[in-house]
Amino acid sequence: MIDQPPVRLAKDEKFQALHLLAPRRGVAIHINAFNFPSWGLWEKAAVSLLAGVPVFAKPASSTAWLAHEMVRDVIDAKVLPEGALNLLCGGAGNLFAHVTSDDVIAFTGSHDTALKIRADANVMARNVAVNVEADSINAVLLSPGAAAGSPSFDAFVKETAREMTVKAGQKCTAIRRIFVPAEIVSAVAEALSAKLSSTKAGDPRQAETRMGPVVSRAQQAAVFDGIAKLSGSAKIICGGKDAPKIEGIDPAKSSFVAPTLLQTNDSNAAVIHDIEVFGPVATIVPYRSEAEAFALVRRGGGSLVVSVFGDDTEFLARAVRELGTSHGRILAVDPSIAASHTGHGIVMPQCNHGGPGRAGNGEELGGLHGLRFYHQRVAVQGSTDLLSNLAGESAPIH
Amino acid sequence: MIDQPPVRLAKDEKFQALHLLAPRRGVAIHINAFNFPSWGLWEKAAVSLLAGVPVFAKPASSTAWLAHEMVRDVIDAKVLPEGALNLLCGGAGNLFAHVTSDDVIAFTGSHDTALKIRADANVMARNVAVNVEADSINAVLLSPGAAAGSPSFDAFVKETAREMTVKAGQKCTAIRRIFVPAEIVSAVAEALSAKLSSTKAGDPRQAETRMGPVVSRAQQAAVFDGIAKLSGSAKIICGGKDAPKIEGIDPAKSSFVAPTLLQTNDSNAAVIHDIEVFGPVATIVPYRSEAEAFALVRRGGGSLVVSVFGDDTEFLARAVRELGTSHGRILAVDPSIAASHTGHGIVMPQCNHGGPGRAGNGEELGGLHGLRFYHQRVAVQGSTDLLSNLAGESAPIH
Repeated sequence: MIDQPPVRLAKDEKFQALHLLAPRRGVAIHINAFNFPSWGLWEKAAVSLLAGVPVFAKPASSTAWLAHEMVRDVIDAKVLPEGALNLLCGGAGNLFAHVTSDDVIAFTGSHDTALKIRADANVMARNVAVNVEADSINAVLLSPGAAAGSPSFDAFVKETAREMTVKAGQKCTAIRRIFVPAEIVSAVAEALSAKLSSTKAGDPRQAETRMGPVVSRAQQAAVFDGIAKLSGSAKIICGGKDAPKIEGIDPAKSSFVAPTLLQTNDSNAAVIHDIEVFGPVATIVPYRSEAEAFALVRRGGGSLVVSVFGDDTEFLARAVRELGTSHGRILAVDPSIAASHTGHGIVMPQCNHGGPGRAGNGEELGGLHGLRFYHQRVAVQGSTDLLSNLAGESAPIH
Repeated sequence: MIDQPPVRLAKDEKFQALHLLAPRRGVAIHINAFNFPSWGLWEKAAVSLLAGVPVFAKPASSTAWLAHEMVRDVIDAKVLPEGALNLLCGGAGNLFAHVTSDDVIAFTGSHDTALKIRADANVMARNVAVNVEADSINAVLLSPGAAAGSPSFDAFVKETAREMTVKAGQKCTAIRRIFVPAEIVSAVAEALSAKLSSTKAGDPRQAETRMGPVVSRAQQAAVFDGIAKLSGSAKIICGGKDAPKIEGIDPAKSSFVAPTLLQTNDSNAAVIHDIEVFGPVATIVPYRSEAEAFALVRRGGGSLVVSVFGDDTEFLARAVRELGTSHGRILAVDPSIAASHTGHGIVMPQCNHGGPGRAGNGEELGGLHGLRFYHQRVAVQGSTDLLSNLAGESAPIH
């Protein structure tokens, strides 16, 4: 693909440079998380295959059977060249010892596992390209001056409650911190807890169920442990660190967590900004000025996404300027798009997915930009004849 | 800056996404090599300052005084805001323990030092962006069928001899491997050694001197050691692992290395493709087919640059396709630009500098693309009113 059209380099117009994106010669190793067994597999595979790079995917152990069924169906359909799609179910063994610099690794999962991959001796020695999309302490921010019951307030409450409960909060993009003007903390707590309490948890096979359990009892225990840690610096408004009573569900055998809302009075408490509780859990954090709000949001140390709700376009523009460098995506909602926006947690293929710092400093999707990871950018310096020949057979990425 | 103009995301045309490049909030730590004390400092600083990111530069110890003088002059000229340019002369101490994910690190130097930076516990934990430009085993390739004395042959000999001797071969881009059709190995050896032997080495202050010493006696010893290793798999055509006799130069106190050309008959010998001898030293490697030539060039495991010389545009285009993915830059010379091209080793600001794999998998310069490293790419999803507001104050990167 053409990244940059020919540019002249010398007095002689015949000598120019063209920047091409050359597809990697190796394979793309995709390591996926349990929480998006289908989307996670295919969003990575699609971009890789479009770039012409064969896929070697490793699903999470808990979703390996589903991945196996899906991949078998696609291979059986014979729509892909032989060898283009490969699946490793089970442990990775010494996989990384076999990686070369022609290969790439795209990982979604925990910070700790990401560190292990990046620190692998062979991966380090060969400077293998590694893309990481890790857990982050995402935020939602309600603008200064927002009044309870205003359109921005209502849009904010609706989206925050939804993001806390979709997939029982087991999303890398889920909202963990809720920043609101100090003077309306009570109104926010009341409105959010009303929404959350009315979210029907139960058997996912029942039509009226809105939230299921977390993935395992170990995960449930980890979430309860996280709530206990947060509650050292915040009070519990609704939910909590005990298994909820749900009709027809045996709490000794299930792994439900009630939607849990906390509220802190210590906006700077480290635990609020540092701990990701991977369940339907978030904390209301009051702020006293716009500058404090932006500084507090940035305490996440780099996040996948922040949503900002407000009526004032100038405020939203300032939020983008102040928060842009520490986020991979910003959803800025004014009342004109309150009903039509695609949501805080929905990763659109047209938009960048990934965030700096803690979020892994990776980039996925984002339109054609997502193809870059599977290519080497190369400057070709040569005669205009050669460059025309090369450009003629290439498509522009822009 | 605008990376991608607004794109529609929903049925409602009012909700769209714009991709911006937000300048990093931290500082850019630049760690430079001894061999380009001026260019290396300023090529990094220029891009960083253009992006609005303050520079914290650490020169190599052997060139710290020069860096200090240059930086003082620039600060004294008061053309930069206070604090925009900072210099650390001496050891790095525990510098990396203070780095945050708002900072970036750009490093030029050895593979081993690059590994230490990338593996630093704090750098790893915070996913700090690190750009590496390391040593690579660059190549030059003369096309199949090239006849001794042809325009391509002559252009190839001239450029190869020049690249081996400029800065006494102490360039990360210097040619280390010379791939030629097996049937003209003798003609190449003869033509190159004639050029090299006539390169006048001596005191750099004398007008007729064409090549000076290497940087230190330790470096001279390392180069001689490298020549000894190469000569286990290749014969020495000219030069060698002893200090050359130069009129008026005391070999016991100086650090000269004669331009040294080797020739192997074992084109697959690992030492030829693995060892970088950082001096005026290169090895002629014969190939028997075009496919073998491309495979041998790729044995470098990722390089900054390869130059290809030939008359046939179709061959040059094939070389770009086959070698593009393992190089950051390809100089493809046909006779029409033999006199006007900017050279194998000259890094043009318009062109990508950096290479995959062994070369560090980094990217510098390359026109406006060089600014990307100093920015976070962020997707802003919002109303067309907000996006117009943001786009209005931003310049496009393309």
